[in-house]
Formats: sequence, C-alpha cells, structure tokens
Amino acid sequence: LTTDTVPKEYAVELDIEGKRVRIGGCCKGAGMISPKMATMLAFITTDAEVAPTVLQGMLRPAVARTFNCISVDADQSTNDTVLLLASGRSARIGADGEAAAAFSAGLEEVCRELALQIVRDGEGTTRVIEVRVKGAKDDADAHRAARAIGESLLVKTAVYGNDPNWGRVLVALGYSGADFDPDRVALWMEDLQIVNGGVRADYREEDAEQRLQDASPVHLVIELALGDGAATFWSSDMTEAYVRENSVYRT
Amino acid sequence: LTTDTVPKEYAVELDIEGKRVRIGGCCKGAGMISPKMATMLAFITTDAEVAPTVLQGMLRPAVARTFNCISVDADQSTNDTVLLLASGRSARIGADGEAAAAFSAGLEEVCRELALQIVRDGEGTTRVIEVRVKGAKDDADAHRAARAIGESLLVKTAVYGNDPNWGRVLVALGYSGADFDPDRVALWMEDLQIVNGGVRADYREEDAEQRLQDASPVHLVIELALGDGAATFWSSDMTEAYVRENSVYRT
Repeated sequence: LTTDTVPKEYAVELDIEGKRVRIGGCCKGAGMISPKMATMLAFITTDAEVAPTVLQGMLRPAVARTFNCISVDADQSTNDTVLLLASGRSARIGADGEAAAAFSAGLEEVCRELALQIVRDGEGTTRVIEVRVKGAKDDADAHRAARAIGESLLVKTAVYGNDPNWGRVLVALGYSGADFDPDRVALWMEDLQIVNGGVRADYREEDAEQRLQDASPVHLVIELALGDGAATFWSSDMTEAYVRENSVYRT
Repeated sequence: LTTDTVPKEYAVELDIEGKRVRIGGCCKGAGMISPKMATMLAFITTDAEVAPTVLQGMLRPAVARTFNCISVDADQSTNDTVLLLASGRSARIGADGEAAAAFSAGLEEVCRELALQIVRDGEGTTRVIEVRVKGAKDDADAHRAARAIGESLLVKTAVYGNDPNWGRVLVALGYSGADFDPDRVALWMEDLQIVNGGVRADYREEDAEQRLQDASPVHLVIELALGDGAATFWSSDMTEAYVRENSVYRT
C-alpha cells in the first residue's frame, strides 16, 4: 500500500575533469514524512568512481540539508532510507578538490529535488511551503526556527487558506527555541515585506493574499539580523484531504 | 475574536478542618493550544486563606499535570495564563499536612477539569484522546511518550476515523525519545488489549473499531514495563473541521 501518486526521480549530468558523470535517483514517500532517515525510501546512483567513505562523507551533509529538511506531517517513520550506489564507470572522485566539490554539489541537487518531489506529492498537499531563515545565531538555530514554522499546523492551514497570517509565523518562531530579538525580525511572503522590525510592514492585505494564492512553493523568508546562521525547510499546507486520507482511508 | 463555543468552568467544595472551602475556576481556549503557560486563559479563585508562596507551590505541579498536559494542535501560544486568587474567607491552609493535601488535590481537580473542557471544545474536535503511559523509566519519560502519541497527526486522524491503528501509536512512541523495549510494550484501546509484548494481541478488528467509535474520551493505555514512571496527556482528534476553521475562517 502506498499513497504516492507520481513517480519521483531526478538526475544531473556533470562535466568533471573532461568526463561525463551522472548522478540519478528515485524515491517514494507521501505521508509519515519527517525524515530522520526512517516510510521514505530514496535510491541514488552514480557512474563515478568514489570510495565508500568519501561518498558517505558527501551524502551525510547533503541529506542533512535536503531529505532531513522536509516534513509533510511531522510524523517520523521507522524506516526512512537513502541508498547511494556508485558503479565507477565514469570519473574517479577523491575526497577533496574541485572534482569533489562539483560532485558534492550535484549530489545535493539530486537529494534536494527528490526531497521536494516528496513534499509536493505529500498526502493532501496543494502547495509546498519553503521556509528560509537567515541571520540566525548559527545554522542549527536557523534550522530549529525554520522547522517550527514549517511544521506549525496554524502556518500550514493559513497557507492553505491564502491567509498572510504573520502572527502565526512569529508565534512558531517564538516557541522554536531559536534565539532572536523581536524588534529585529523581518518577514517576507514572496517579494512582499510583511513584518519589519517586529511590527507589521506597510503592505495591502489583498496584495499579500494574492501573492500566497499565486505561489507554489510559497516562499516565507525570515530575517533575524543576529548572525550568519541560515537554513531552508520545506513543508506542505494542511488540508481537509490530508485528514480524509489518514482517517477514512480504509472505508 | 474567539473560537470557544461553550463556557468552561468548574468548582469543588472541600471540607477542611470543619470548614467549607471552595475552589472554582473558568478558562478560555480552543485553538493554538499546547500550553507552556502562554491563547489559553484560566482564572481560579478560592475562599481559603493561603500564603501566596504556598499557593504558587501547589499550583505549579497541578498545572504541570493538567494544563501543560493538553494539546489541540501542538501550537504553543504566546500568552497562556493561569491565575489563582484567594480571598481568605474560609479556612487557613498551610504548606504541609492534611489540610494542604486536601486543598492541593481539590486544586488539581479544578485544573484538570478546566483543561479537559478546553480540549473537548478544541477547534474541530469530535473526541478527546486520553493517553496514559505507565511503566516508564520515570515520569518525565512517560510524559515525553504520552505527548508524542497524543500530538501525532496520524494517531489523531486514526482516532477520528475509528481506526485501531496501533502501528501509528508505536511509531510515535519510537520517535518520542522515551526509553522502551519493543518486546515489552503493551497497548490497550479502552478495555481491549491491542498489543502484547510488542506484537498484535488476539482481538477482532471490528471489536476494536467499535470501542473507538463508542468512546469519548478514547483511552489509549501504553505499558512499557520498565519502571514506575507514569503520565497522562489529553489531546483531540484531527478533523476536516479543524483545517477549515484555521484556513478559511476569514471568508
């Protein structure tokens, strides 16, 4: 039994030291999605030759910034998996240097696109929410804030309803545990500034609603103006369809 | 603007050292409910004479086991409040002894009944879920497990759908961070044992569905068989009505 509605796959072709290197992947997952590597399955292959420890060293941070930065329902699964296999038929990639950097970037792109396909196909999802937190004390704090905002049921239902409810965003930031100074917080929904220095910016309500209605993903950008920490987290809106799919699915 | 649909109030009358002592309270709250003392407001009064520090010492653990053990949507608010006022017109209560114990128990009953009225009136709620975890390493671990199960969207939608989906309960236990041995876990839904030693107990599916359909609150009891830790947590089922109320409430 799966609730996935579309195949999820992505590949990049890189030019590394004159050789064509391919990294491709496919994955499944639509509900019980809040991966700490547990219902989500992803399989990635490459034709490069890379030592297993080097591959693992590249995969771990890529997964941390992609698969582990998505949530459909905040319910962790018991069996998320990302497997990466290398056939060794194209370029040889070492642990460092330009080739390694190019390969790592390609690998992260594949992970990010696959992770996004899971959120886009999330149970009941009508739109993806991309939460970008900048200017945090550090990256971990930025992630904490971005996850709390992205997983908030009130933020997720507001997006579903095209409601530019910035109070809900700030409340989730507040309980996230991240350090911030309320007087410095700024928030954009798409290109429209909604909050400036902790208070409502000068915008027209109907403009904000229109931005939310037209966008997918919906971009929420939060500037904390404290430091250099940044993180991006992807979640989905919360809809009646999610509730139906998970309550009456057997009848 | 409030989404509360009913008044929420409760009182007890105690007989303490020959005197009638009253403790009464009222509260509001229906959404953005996951109190760490922040949208929820509760006001409790008593006619006893109790020193402020003694009252605070009694109120804090009562709130920890009642108001702080409920969740409608896991979204903390910025302004939950419990106020307790004493007029001093009935008995004088000290910090210790029988009178203090009787008063504390009465106070906790008022807190618990008010907290339950909030969950019962939670936005979109059709039924309350009472999660009782026993046999945990300690009370804090039991609370961690009970909260994770109570707040799981998949458990909340399963209860809404009368689906005895014990896998979802065990998954939430798994990611709660609480210590447990899967082979020892037992689960009851109402009086029906669903899991025994980590595997499905011998029950008929239609009996379990019937239990869920008839019960409110729905009692989920989890025995970890590790220690003496125990906790109770109250949440609500997740319904299409919750989503509607929080997405299209302005239109």
